[in-house]
Amino acid sequence: MEKLTGLIAAPFTPFDEKGALATDRVADLAALYGQNGVRGAFIAGSTGECASLSLAEKEALMFAWADTKAVNPDLKLLYLLGGTCLQDIQHLAGKAAELKLDGISLVAPYYFRPSSVETLVDFCQEAAAAAPDLPFYYYHIPSLSGGFYSMTRFLELAAPKIPNLAGIKYSHSDIMEFQACLAFQNEKFDLLWGTDEALLSGMVAGAKGAVGSTYNYAAPLYHRIIRAFNEGDLEEARRLQLLSVRIVELLVKYGGIGAGKAFMKLIGVDCGWSRPPVGHPKSADLDKLRSELEALGFFDFCNRYETLQSK
Amino acid sequence: MEKLTGLIAAPFTPFDEKGALATDRVADLAALYGQNGVRGAFIAGSTGECASLSLAEKEALMFAWADTKAVNPDLKLLYLLGGTCLQDIQHLAGKAAELKLDGISLVAPYYFRPSSVETLVDFCQEAAAAAPDLPFYYYHIPSLSGGFYSMTRFLELAAPKIPNLAGIKYSHSDIMEFQACLAFQNEKFDLLWGTDEALLSGMVAGAKGAVGSTYNYAAPLYHRIIRAFNEGDLEEARRLQLLSVRIVELLVKYGGIGAGKAFMKLIGVDCGWSRPPVGHPKSADLDKLRSELEALGFFDFCNRYETLQSK
Amino acid sequence: MEKLTGLIAAPFTPFDEKGALATDRVADLAALYGQNGVRGAFIAGSTGECASLSLAEKEALMFAWADTKAVNPDLKLLYLLGGTCLQDIQHLAGKAAELKLDGISLVAPYYFRPSSVETLVDFCQEAAAAAPDLPFYYYHIPSLSGGFYSMTRFLELAAPKIPNLAGIKYSHSDIMEFQACLAFQNEKFDLLWGTDEALLSGMVAGAKGAVGSTYNYAAPLYHRIIRAFNEGDLEEARRLQLLSVRIVELLVKYGGIGAGKAFMKLIGVDCGWSRPPVGHPKSADLDKLRSELEALGFFDFCNRYETLQSK
Amino acid sequence: MEKLTGLIAAPFTPFDEKGALATDRVADLAALYGQNGVRGAFIAGSTGECASLSLAEKEALMFAWADTKAVNPDLKLLYLLGGTCLQDIQHLAGKAAELKLDGISLVAPYYFRPSSVETLVDFCQEAAAAAPDLPFYYYHIPSLSGGFYSMTRFLELAAPKIPNLAGIKYSHSDIMEFQACLAFQNEKFDLLWGTDEALLSGMVAGAKGAVGSTYNYAAPLYHRIIRAFNEGDLEEARRLQLLSVRIVELLVKYGGIGAGKAFMKLIGVDCGWSRPPVGHPKSADLDKLRSELEALGFFDFCNRYETLQSK
Repeated sequence: MEKLTGLIAAPFTPFDEKGALATDRVADLAALYGQNGVRGAFIAGSTGECASLSLAEKEALMFAWADTKAVNPDLKLLYLLGGTCLQDIQHLAGKAAELKLDGISLVAPYYFRPSSVETLVDFCQEAAAAAPDLPFYYYHIPSLSGGFYSMTRFLELAAPKIPNLAGIKYSHSDIMEFQACLAFQNEKFDLLWGTDEALLSGMVAGAKGAVGSTYNYAAPLYHRIIRAFNEGDLEEARRLQLLSVRIVELLVKYGGIGAGKAFMKLIGVDCGWSRPPVGHPKSADLDKLRSELEALGFFDFCNRYETLQSK
Repeated sequence: MEKLTGLIAAPFTPFDEKGALATDRVADLAALYGQNGVRGAFIAGSTGECASLSLAEKEALMFAWADTKAVNPDLKLLYLLGGTCLQDIQHLAGKAAELKLDGISLVAPYYFRPSSVETLVDFCQEAAAAAPDLPFYYYHIPSLSGGFYSMTRFLELAAPKIPNLAGIKYSHSDIMEFQACLAFQNEKFDLLWGTDEALLSGMVAGAKGAVGSTYNYAAPLYHRIIRAFNEGDLEEARRLQLLSVRIVELLVKYGGIGAGKAFMKLIGVDCGWSRPPVGHPKSADLDKLRSELEALGFFDFCNRYETLQSK
Repeated sequence: MEKLTGLIAAPFTPFDEKGALATDRVADLAALYGQNGVRGAFIAGSTGECASLSLAEKEALMFAWADTKAVNPDLKLLYLLGGTCLQDIQHLAGKAAELKLDGISLVAPYYFRPSSVETLVDFCQEAAAAAPDLPFYYYHIPSLSGGFYSMTRFLELAAPKIPNLAGIKYSHSDIMEFQACLAFQNEKFDLLWGTDEALLSGMVAGAKGAVGSTYNYAAPLYHRIIRAFNEGDLEEARRLQLLSVRIVELLVKYGGIGAGKAFMKLIGVDCGWSRPPVGHPKSADLDKLRSELEALGFFDFCNRYETLQSK
Repeated sequence: MEKLTGLIAAPFTPFDEKGALATDRVADLAALYGQNGVRGAFIAGSTGECASLSLAEKEALMFAWADTKAVNPDLKLLYLLGGTCLQDIQHLAGKAAELKLDGISLVAPYYFRPSSVETLVDFCQEAAAAAPDLPFYYYHIPSLSGGFYSMTRFLELAAPKIPNLAGIKYSHSDIMEFQACLAFQNEKFDLLWGTDEALLSGMVAGAKGAVGSTYNYAAPLYHRIIRAFNEGDLEEARRLQLLSVRIVELLVKYGGIGAGKAFMKLIGVDCGWSRPPVGHPKSADLDKLRSELEALGFFDFCNRYETLQSK
């Protein structure tokens, strides 16, 4: 299987003022990605509030993204099947296959957590088999799923059982494990780096593709990081990475995923607010957030959408 | 609001041989409860594999349980709205209201965990408001949800915000907190004890109603515990509670919820097996399990369904 | 081995105004215990700030407590060997044997945590062998030690390896495990209950002896709880237990162990303040604490030392 | 304060066949470091089994290391004050000052864990003040200490309170935080990287100095990693880092710190075995370990001590 490279954004799921799914705004995201050199979309992931969507909404969202192929055919579309109900997961996998998306992904079930990595692999096998022609990525994010499984062990067990296993979206902090997974069976599998704020540390460990939420609004910054890294100017790369750190500090300070949606509003791509229990910055905080972002030069290095459109 | 008393079973959700929902077996459970003095059913809870059901299945399951009112009108029906998508939760709450169930319940969302107890209360408020005439129970089970919130603080915040707040299904091990919640505002709220294997310790702390999975197959034993407790024969009560401990040790040894379904098969109320990722005992283990249960005298103190039916 | 019964206080370690060990105040504690019907002292435990004492201080403290046998010969003296250095632990065990204390105890090492319960048992074996004639209690307090080991497995492994194993001081919330340990090998081992604020729940599960910090200043209340329990007046027992809950809520609110030392000052047995990193209430808070305790009737049901002395 | 650069080994504490401290072997370690270009020693750290040493042993160990200045004057000597008793910590700090060591360090107290980062800073302040002329490093290793404090907040609070604060030995996996701490107050503080198996990822984030246990026996490998990194040959650097990953995998497989002592025996610098509760490989496993290391080429890239001595 071909490996993914470059930046893959984890899109926000757009909601309207009443909190209803606003699929009409998906095209804006795809356009933004196209303009910003983002190579793929990891749809309905954590940033996309997978767990807050109904099955019908998940399907509608998938269709809306599939439609963007008409305007942005090169954008790789990966879909997080998400959830904890295997029947729903398999249903979505089937739809993804029908729509010829570029890949599917699955997070460990997070209410009943698999009692062993063997049980996890069995669960993934049943999901992956519902779309046998699509590349399958395990989404490793133990801080949210509570699934602290060994990923090298996962690959050992899953490689023979899941023919369409493509690799792992790795949103965890164990770089040693990341590198060991990369090296597994002569670099057979694709390991997608999931920690935007430490992209350099992932690249130096061998990451070629990265999935993240800040690539929605700060892709130009990361392109400069990647360029500096590739040109061997690590000093400059590190200086730019620190800007990414500062952005993520603001993200944390203003409330995580909900704050990310505020960033989107500020760059001109309104995705609405998050659904409960994910909060969002209060109106009073939005001006402060804008000022803090301006102080970082955020609006210089992260083209606003309106700017992009006027080009 | 009237408080619930006595034993409330957390029903297993019946599946057929192919793993499909088997709503036709719900009536057997209701009948079993009627024969065994079980006063209520906490439907689609953890034992009921809430997280492994689709929305359509949850609705179908709710309808099947509502139908049991015809034959067992006194059985209190509580429904765990479950899940992490507020829209689905509200939809189910509306259905529960239409069907005039006896109460609804909600567990803390478990992928995006509320960042504070205030956020949790807001989430519950939106759910409870969708069925304002039904008693609302917060389901506190941090070992599964990851939501380690203070329940006294929850009551302080929720009491003024959720008019239909009935109380808490308390599946946690902090007895001091349990007693403090019981005492809150002159014992205004209903606290349902969720630790079958320590029922006595809950009763001595003030519990009057208890929700659990072992009440499915061992209610007669627990009735004897309650009677001994009420008669002041704590020695005997403790001796019987130890049998409950032994049952739960077997449950743990043979695989948790999946082992519980094996218990059900052994007493003659086949609910099928659990869905992945919940496992179940292997065939080879079933005979060993039966022997170990026999050694405990399980089949003496827990009437089998066939026996009950022949009465 | 004879089992311990009744209330066993976990003494505060007295420090003077400069924070130095004040062994001269130990006799006051022993006298207080004598007057209040406290049957034993669990010396240098968590309440006694074991981890904040030097080896020399631990020895001096042990000697001071041994001296109290002259005035209060019936008070059972148990000593927590504490620490993470086996050599120090064995040294203290030897001293405890020389001084003919009534028992020794050990918490799981808490920097390098044993990788398995087998390793824990081996560690305990080496400690217990240094005082083979003294009863040995394992001190199970995973919230502080980080050692979440199965205690039934511990007993299985330790019973044949540690001839002087007396039992477990159980400061954890798993009542099922507590009862299973009590029942182990026909109730061979002594299980000391470590959760003052849920004493009733422990007694109903079979606890006969209890070790705790609030028995320092509230023993009369607990005697009333025990009496009500023994007389079958569980309603009254529960009412009194709620007072214990209220005391512990204040303890938590004002800072834990350090707040306990404030309680001691208020009842007239000054043990100084705690050493860092354990804090203590600020002066400004002491009056508020006193008022809150008065509102509970604390000074009525918990005799002050001056009152006791004037008798 | 001058920052530390290059590799700093965390020495094993040598014990003899009976488990007694063998200070006579310290010189061998210092000689090994000299021959292998190791710039410093982080004495009595986790690798040095700090928590398993008595105070007297800690002092004797410190003296033995101070003596190595005679033969290896350039080796920077940092001493982990360790422990949970502030009096002992201050005593050791005083000794370190008398002996003119190059720095002291402290881990968060790990039985009573500071309730806030403020409390932690206060504790560090009292320790650091006992050796005001020595650089003070906070040792951040939450996986062992249980102290998951924000290090950026630590620096904010500690900078004005601890005049001799030099920086942080950072043994945690949060690279974003590491970089933010590095950048704090114009790179005022020294951040020592503590994850050998991800050294590259630390260097690309800005690390200049690194402290670790594998630098005891594999320093030549890490020098090659550093050289390749500095020469811009990241491909080669990554290839070599993977060898480090393989070494650490063996370390984990054979038992952690105890396995590290086996590595030392294999390269000819016998430090004895670890004290309980840290285990060590069984005799039967030693040959397997040697074979697995040989298969990695370990003995080629990690000069054995005898080889070094014959040069």
